[in-house]
This record gives sequence, structure tokens and C-alpha cells, in this order.
Amino acid sequence: MYIGIDIGGTTIKGVLTNREGEILSFKKIPIGKTPPEIEHCLIELIRVLAAAKGLDPSAVKGIGVGSAGSIDRDRGMVLTSPNIPALQKFPLIKTIRHRTGVPAFLENDATVAVIGEWWKGAGRKYSNWIMLTLGTGIGGGVVIDRRIYTGQSGSAMEVGHTSIDYRGRKCPCGSTGCLELYASATGLMRYARRVIRKHPDSPLIARMKKEKLDPRIIEEEALLGDPLSLHIYAQVSTWLGIGIANLVNIFNPEAIVFGGGLSRAHRLIFPVVKKTVHERVMEGLDHNIRYLIIRDHDRAPALGAARVAMDALKK
Amino acid sequence: MYIGIDIGGTTIKGVLTNREGEILSFKKIPIGKTPPEIEHCLIELIRVLAAAKGLDPSAVKGIGVGSAGSIDRDRGMVLTSPNIPALQKFPLIKTIRHRTGVPAFLENDATVAVIGEWWKGAGRKYSNWIMLTLGTGIGGGVVIDRRIYTGQSGSAMEVGHTSIDYRGRKCPCGSTGCLELYASATGLMRYARRVIRKHPDSPLIARMKKEKLDPRIIEEEALLGDPLSLHIYAQVSTWLGIGIANLVNIFNPEAIVFGGGLSRAHRLIFPVVKKTVHERVMEGLDHNIRYLIIRDHDRAPALGAARVAMDALKK
Repeated sequence: MYIGIDIGGTTIKGVLTNREGEILSFKKIPIGKTPPEIEHCLIELIRVLAAAKGLDPSAVKGIGVGSAGSIDRDRGMVLTSPNIPALQKFPLIKTIRHRTGVPAFLENDATVAVIGEWWKGAGRKYSNWIMLTLGTGIGGGVVIDRRIYTGQSGSAMEVGHTSIDYRGRKCPCGSTGCLELYASATGLMRYARRVIRKHPDSPLIARMKKEKLDPRIIEEEALLGDPLSLHIYAQVSTWLGIGIANLVNIFNPEAIVFGGGLSRAHRLIFPVVKKTVHERVMEGLDHNIRYLIIRDHDRAPALGAARVAMDALKK
Repeated sequence: MYIGIDIGGTTIKGVLTNREGEILSFKKIPIGKTPPEIEHCLIELIRVLAAAKGLDPSAVKGIGVGSAGSIDRDRGMVLTSPNIPALQKFPLIKTIRHRTGVPAFLENDATVAVIGEWWKGAGRKYSNWIMLTLGTGIGGGVVIDRRIYTGQSGSAMEVGHTSIDYRGRKCPCGSTGCLELYASATGLMRYARRVIRKHPDSPLIARMKKEKLDPRIIEEEALLGDPLSLHIYAQVSTWLGIGIANLVNIFNPEAIVFGGGLSRAHRLIFPVVKKTVHERVMEGLDHNIRYLIIRDHDRAPALGAARVAMDALKK
């Protein structure tokens, strides 16, 4: 038995799985805000996942953790976390090991998502495919000849920091025009705030008075036909398509699998992305590409995290 | 015995090799301008290469041909050739097969270059590396886990058509801001013509009166200290570095091997490329990258073409 944990911006999700990747229990809880709260959430999640099969946490063979932000695998820590400041420098893996007695391993969220999809999701049918995680940033993964490629030091597929406009906006990473400045959930909200001001009649203005605006609300309004909301998604999808066209010219893939919160709006995003990619890639390169959605948003990354632990213990 | 042929913008190069990749004979001739001249060049080159070892061309097991331009492997034809219009739609492979009786195969120039380097050049020491061919356009190749990755339909690594500026110049491929518009030999000459006009005192103006300006002349003047020539190379190398930074963020490679005519100016290009890549990639991603030059500009692509024939006949 293995446990996989996926730490997102607002929730922690976990699965208990066996060597075959069957999900034996699943649990999703809000994440704490302070280090002691985070520790409590994690240990409680692990306890509940194991208890669902009548186990004590110490009976689990390994625990894998996927987290957003930049991570240090060796020290088992999240170095920078845009959404959960308390997670920064928190001794994540050490705490889990200490409290459960079980070996634990850390990986980044985009990598556990691609591993989950490769193991049990959309990626099983394809040899050469790309995964994009559209969240606060844009993460990526790539499968080549049915194997996950992670690069020389495990840092490949920093897709969010490929530049589509070297004269463009400055990115905290030090570069300019990085794709995630335009086509992540953060990029979408930045663009939305810019254009909403010019449209005082938009239903988005009315929504903003009642609740905090987010990509889901704009998606709802777009699906109800609001021209401004449709425009916001079309513009962001065009930028995303420009970045994906570069990846298609580079990888000539069979399929592209989308995960992350923003990918739930695929009905709005895919048509524009496909059109943009078609206009920009070399003749014929996009003819047979499948555009797919992660099979199980909630469980695939956590399942991938469990697989990370399984593979690490095999070595 | 196998023959490999590398068709460039102005010359055809050929090697005769054995299964071990030893070069038994080498020959370089100017390329003809009309279809009958091209046919004559090719057949003469093949005859001379074989004759150097006392062979008749028909004794050769296979002939591989690498060519610039976009190619159709199945029909054995170059579809579009920026430098040799007569090569377009010329029945290249059919002619060679018909005239020699030997099986022949076509591949693109960037791919044969990476195969040559992977087989006998700089790439033998590395598991995960990129090759860039800086010529009229920019071609690319990638080796992953010691195997050449060519994509789902053999069209991966169209690096020259990755965009670094989606609001930039229009490319004949249909996209905008393609890297090769800025950082190929063609891009360098376009930029040079634009800036030379504003510098009537430049030694480049004097050179232009005597001969046709090309990247080599600008390199010579740069190495003699001409500030304008140095600026032209620095600007083009910055653009190249922007494109390479995207590749480094994607592949996290051990090494980057440069081939193609423009790479001969690596003393001017590398320092600026390295600085630009360092400024633009994710922290630490460029720490251990080796920047290398193709071991043998003249022979490596032709050797790679021979290997294409060898592998095709094994299947």
C-alpha cells in the first residue's frame, strides 16, 4: 500500500493505492494556513486514508507528495509557494517521516500529474505526448517512447517559463514574456481585471460586487453568452495556443493532456487553442494531435505522487 | 559500404563509410543549378566516392541523402528549397536509385547532422542533448536517453519555427516571430543590411563594394574589432540565446551542439548566447550545460546520412 498526496493552492488531496494503482481510498481536505495547521492536515489526511482500509499509517510502505511551487527534492521542502506562504521552508518530508515512520518523497505538481496520467489515465494509449497543468502557473510534463522525460537534473518542461514575447512583460523568474504570465489562471485574472474596467455593463461587474472574481465565474458568464467573458477566454486561449504551437513544433506529439483548474474550462479553451496551433505550426504537424483532459482532476496527481514513492523505494 | 550525401546551399558533400562509421573517402563539389546539372553532380559524386576504394557504385549497399528545405521522405523529394530552386520537386531518390541500382533514402539536413554527431561526434558522451544547425534557417535535433527523438511523424525539433515574439515579424511558415527570422544566417544578413545603412564609416561598406556581403565577412570584421560587426553578432546571438533558453527550460539538457555555417563564428556567438540563456532560464538549469561545436562540419552530416541508409535497410 502507498499513499499519494497532492498539495494544491487551497486543498490537499490524498489517495491510498496498491501496486496496481487501484484507488482504495480518497480524501480531500482544505489546507491549513500556519505550519502547525499544515502538519495537522497532512497527518490527519494520512491517518484517514489508511484507516479507510483498517490500517495504521505505519503499515503504509511509502508516501509520495506532489506540491505546487518550486521544490527541493533532496531536502524535501517547498522553496517558494505562491499560494501557501506557510509551506515555504516547512520541513514537509521530514515531518511526515517523523510522524508516521514511513519513507516519504517530494515531487512537483506537474510531474505527479503526468505520472498519474501516464500510469492510469489518458496517457496510457500514447507513446509520445505532452501534459500541461494550467493552474496558478503553467507546469508541464512529457512522455517520450512511453517513458516520462524529466531532463538532466529533473527540471525539464518548465513550459510556463518558455517565452512567447521576448519584448513582453517581465517575469519574477528573470525572463520576459513567459507563457504563464499570459495563459495561467493568474494570467487570465490579470487580463480580466484590465479589460473589465472598460466594460461597466458587464455582468462580471455585478458578480464582483457579490463575490471574489475567479476563472470559474468568468467561465460561467462566458457559457451564458457574456461577450466580455468570452473575449477574456478567447484571448487567453490564443496566448496558450501560441505557447503550445512552440511545443508542437518541438515535440511533434500524438496527444496533449490538460490538467489543472483552468483546464475545466476546456469547452471555451480548446477550440481557440486548436485554431491558433493550426495557424502557427509547420504544415501538417497538428493533423493528428488529440486534445485531452486529465481523466480525474482530483485523483490523478495524488495517484502519480503515490507512484513516485513506489518507484523511489524500488531503486 | 554505405554512401552519405549532404546537400547544402552551395555544395554537395559525400562520404563512403563502413558499418563502423569510419570514413573511407570524402568529396565536396559545387552543386549544379539546373535539374540535369544536379543529376550529373550527384552521380559523379557517388562514382568518385566509390572509386576511391576501387568500387563500382552498384557495390554500395545503401545511399542516404540529407537536404536542407522541407522534404518528403516517402516520395524522396525536396518540396521547398530556399537556395536551390532546381532541387524542388526534382526526383532525387528515384534518380539515384535508377542511375546506381542502389537503395537510397532522404532525410532532412538537421536530422542527418544530429545522427552524425550522435554516431561519431560530440554527442557520444552525453545522454540528453540538443543539436542546432545554424544555416539559412535553423534546424534542430534532440537526443533523449541516448536515442534520437524525431516525433510522431518524424517532424520534431522545428526549432527555427518556434516563436520568440508572437507580435513580431511574419514568417512564410504562417506563424510570427519565428526564431530563424532573427538568428539564422539569413536573419543575420537581414539585420546587417538594416543597420549598415546607418553606419557609412563601417568597414563593411568598403567590403560590400568589392564583394557580396556574407556572415563570414562580418565575422572577419568583428574579429578585427569593428564595433558595428560586433554589434550585429551580439544582437543575433541574443536572439539565438532567447530561443535556446526556451529549449533549455523544456529539455534541461546536458549539452548543446552547434552545426551549420553560422556556428563557425562560435567565438563571437557563444559568450552572448551563454549570458542570455543564464539570464532567462529557471535558476540553476544552465549550470552544467556544455556548449559544443560539431566535430566535423564537412563530414558529420554526410556520415549521418549514410547511417540513415544503414538503419533503413536493417528494418
